[in-house]
Amino acid sequence: MLNRPDVAVLGAGPVGLAIAWRCAQRGLRVVVHDPAPGSGASRVAAGMLAPVAEAYFGEHELTGLLTASAARWPAFAAELTAATGVDVGYRSEGTLMVGLTADDLAEARRLWAYQQGIGLPVTPLRPSALRDREPALAPRVRGGAFAATDHQVDPRRLVPALRVAAERAGAALVPAAVRALSDVDARVTVVAAGCGAAALTGLPVRPVKGQVVRLRAPGGGAPGFRHVIRGYADGEHVYLVPRVDGEVVVGATVEERSDTDVSAGAVLRLLRAAVDLLPELAEYDLLETLAGLRPGTPDNAPILGPLPGRPGVLAATGHHRHGIVLTPVTADLIADLVVTGAVDPLLAPFTPARFAPSAAAGRAAAAPSAPAGPVVAAAPSAVGPTGSAGPDAAAAGRAGPFVPEEEHTWN
Amino acid sequence: MLNRPDVAVLGAGPVGLAIAWRCAQRGLRVVVHDPAPGSGASRVAAGMLAPVAEAYFGEHELTGLLTASAARWPAFAAELTAATGVDVGYRSEGTLMVGLTADDLAEARRLWAYQQGIGLPVTPLRPSALRDREPALAPRVRGGAFAATDHQVDPRRLVPALRVAAERAGAALVPAAVRALSDVDARVTVVAAGCGAAALTGLPVRPVKGQVVRLRAPGGGAPGFRHVIRGYADGEHVYLVPRVDGEVVVGATVEERSDTDVSAGAVLRLLRAAVDLLPELAEYDLLETLAGLRPGTPDNAPILGPLPGRPGVLAATGHHRHGIVLTPVTADLIADLVVTGAVDPLLAPFTPARFAPSAAAGRAAAAPSAPAGPVVAAAPSAVGPTGSAGPDAAAAGRAGPFVPEEEHTWN
Repeated sequence: MLNRPDVAVLGAGPVGLAIAWRCAQRGLRVVVHDPAPGSGASRVAAGMLAPVAEAYFGEHELTGLLTASAARWPAFAAELTAATGVDVGYRSEGTLMVGLTADDLAEARRLWAYQQGIGLPVTPLRPSALRDREPALAPRVRGGAFAATDHQVDPRRLVPALRVAAERAGAALVPAAVRALSDVDARVTVVAAGCGAAALTGLPVRPVKGQVVRLRAPGGGAPGFRHVIRGYADGEHVYLVPRVDGEVVVGATVEERSDTDVSAGAVLRLLRAAVDLLPELAEYDLLETLAGLRPGTPDNAPILGPLPGRPGVLAATGHHRHGIVLTPVTADLIADLVVTGAVDPLLAPFTPARFAPSAAAGRAAAAPSAPAGPVVAAAPSAVGPTGSAGPDAAAAGRAGPFVPEEEHTWN
Repeated sequence: MLNRPDVAVLGAGPVGLAIAWRCAQRGLRVVVHDPAPGSGASRVAAGMLAPVAEAYFGEHELTGLLTASAARWPAFAAELTAATGVDVGYRSEGTLMVGLTADDLAEARRLWAYQQGIGLPVTPLRPSALRDREPALAPRVRGGAFAATDHQVDPRRLVPALRVAAERAGAALVPAAVRALSDVDARVTVVAAGCGAAALTGLPVRPVKGQVVRLRAPGGGAPGFRHVIRGYADGEHVYLVPRVDGEVVVGATVEERSDTDVSAGAVLRLLRAAVDLLPELAEYDLLETLAGLRPGTPDNAPILGPLPGRPGVLAATGHHRHGIVLTPVTADLIADLVVTGAVDPLLAPFTPARFAPSAAAGRAAAAPSAPAGPVVAAAPSAVGPTGSAGPDAAAAGRAGPFVPEEEHTWN
């Protein structure tokens, strides 16, 4: 077929659009399918780029990927702005991590010690140094630490910018839903549909509900604080993300639910913790309360790479709380995979094969082995690629066929 | 002029629409002007009909009017439903007044003692009796009292019903704003424009901001409580109004401000007090946060009757926190005043003349004296009234001319 696209991307969130952009830049013919671009988890996300603050016990491989992607962010944001003229709200003031009470601080310090122990840049601060950095913090706040490399970006600016970039690079957006992979006619299909990936692929992606509150500094000015603040406040975990335009995102709950209702209790807990940490927030306008669904996975890590048993289908989903920070590395490495057929070592721990049935019998067997042939041969111009054997080759060397199930429950 | 209306009502909130209804029922030709009917304070109001719980020290005359109007509510609601087929959500389970802490209870008891002292039906309840009535109350709630005659209605049902009733009775609605009284061509003009009355008349009506939160019981059922609950919770005053359809209104702040921004602090305080009193509310959906502007007056009482120095102009504004409960008595007595020219004794303490400049020199002089001639002669059919001398006569016997000012500040 003359007009058959090289790559069909299912999902126009940040991950899908960035993959489309990168693939189009490589000269591939790209189509993105989404009935409502940017309407998923990214609409609710705060946009923290936090490989340090989000480095948790037992997630070493994920921490490596987060760090690698965060390191790509400055250049990624600059390139995106150069390509589109859109300021995506990248801010590099860094993140303050604080504890309100002695108990909160003790809990936080255990995590900071772990983060320091694996070599991440966490700087403990005396209370006076904390207040020098952020005078608006409540006097009650007992202590904190600084993560200079944990930055932020504004997802509501990012998604429109990525859409413009992808389209300018030649990608086409089809505003319609894809119900089944068999409905897609492309050499390679990339499933970047967030929670929707479960129905399309059978992968164990489940919705993890998050509720946030959006505030605005009164009087039209910038918020009275500059850093991202992540706090423990009487046992509640909360983050406060200030935007230059005056907006503050307060988040977020983590709930094993699939509805997007906003609950009184969640808003109460978020606002209470926020105001406890930063009293002036009580005077801020409440703009919006909303809930979104993160694509969670059994091991909290994303699912990136060839789908076993489905030649020509790649997964780029399961980003859970990390979709924004992981956008650059996901886009770069999935585009590389499409072009070269090689699974980058950074991606290896995150391939879909780890959830294949045989993985239970022997996880090693499910790990990717040698790089396979290119999925789509690199095309310097937008002329069609040269072979269709790629997808089959890409699936070679994987564990036995992965059988999608009708329904997964991973709660 | 053949088509000149007998009565022009400025404002299509509950008060204005009810006046229009009553006047149209009396055979008068009525036009109601409002660019956005029902978009004022009534959109935010909870609809408590609370002459007992709202009986405060030093407001004896207002308490009398509240009581008189609340007594008219059952028949008013029934007539309205009969005329329109609309259920306006009238509920007669009564109101529980509760105190969370010992301090809260002490504060509440002082007020209940006053209310009992002036003969209002307040029944103290033992904690066990309180929980028998409303098992969902928090175990921490220290005590309460029952006001059996304090009922509720749903303002968002009331306003559409009144509009239908007024239009069926013959009133016409003009969806446009009136900027000045001189733009109105009618024998009698009734200013029922809430806070907008200040600019039209120079009366000392000021906005008093109120913020509320609207919740909904999860699962589509009715709320887990039946009574209106008015509570003191750690010094916060809050009310919880359950609707049959599952909605719960949580209110309200009282702020000397004229913006309608919703603040994080107000939502936090309302939700905290609500959940402290009724823990299950934490599981309710948060539907809406919003703010409205009550038309406040220097003495917290409404302004009802002829405007001094402006023949043919009647005021029906300044209802502050009491617009819904005062709707029936306001409509009945203002319509009577239009037809007979007589100021009902119930209205006498509330005439605009009390704010005339000379009222400061001697308030007695500003009080209404003998009934004046009819403002508009009663017209059994919709044929035009017989005399235009009425308005002048109605103004006779009032204190010296009331001079509207450009701006009033009564904060």
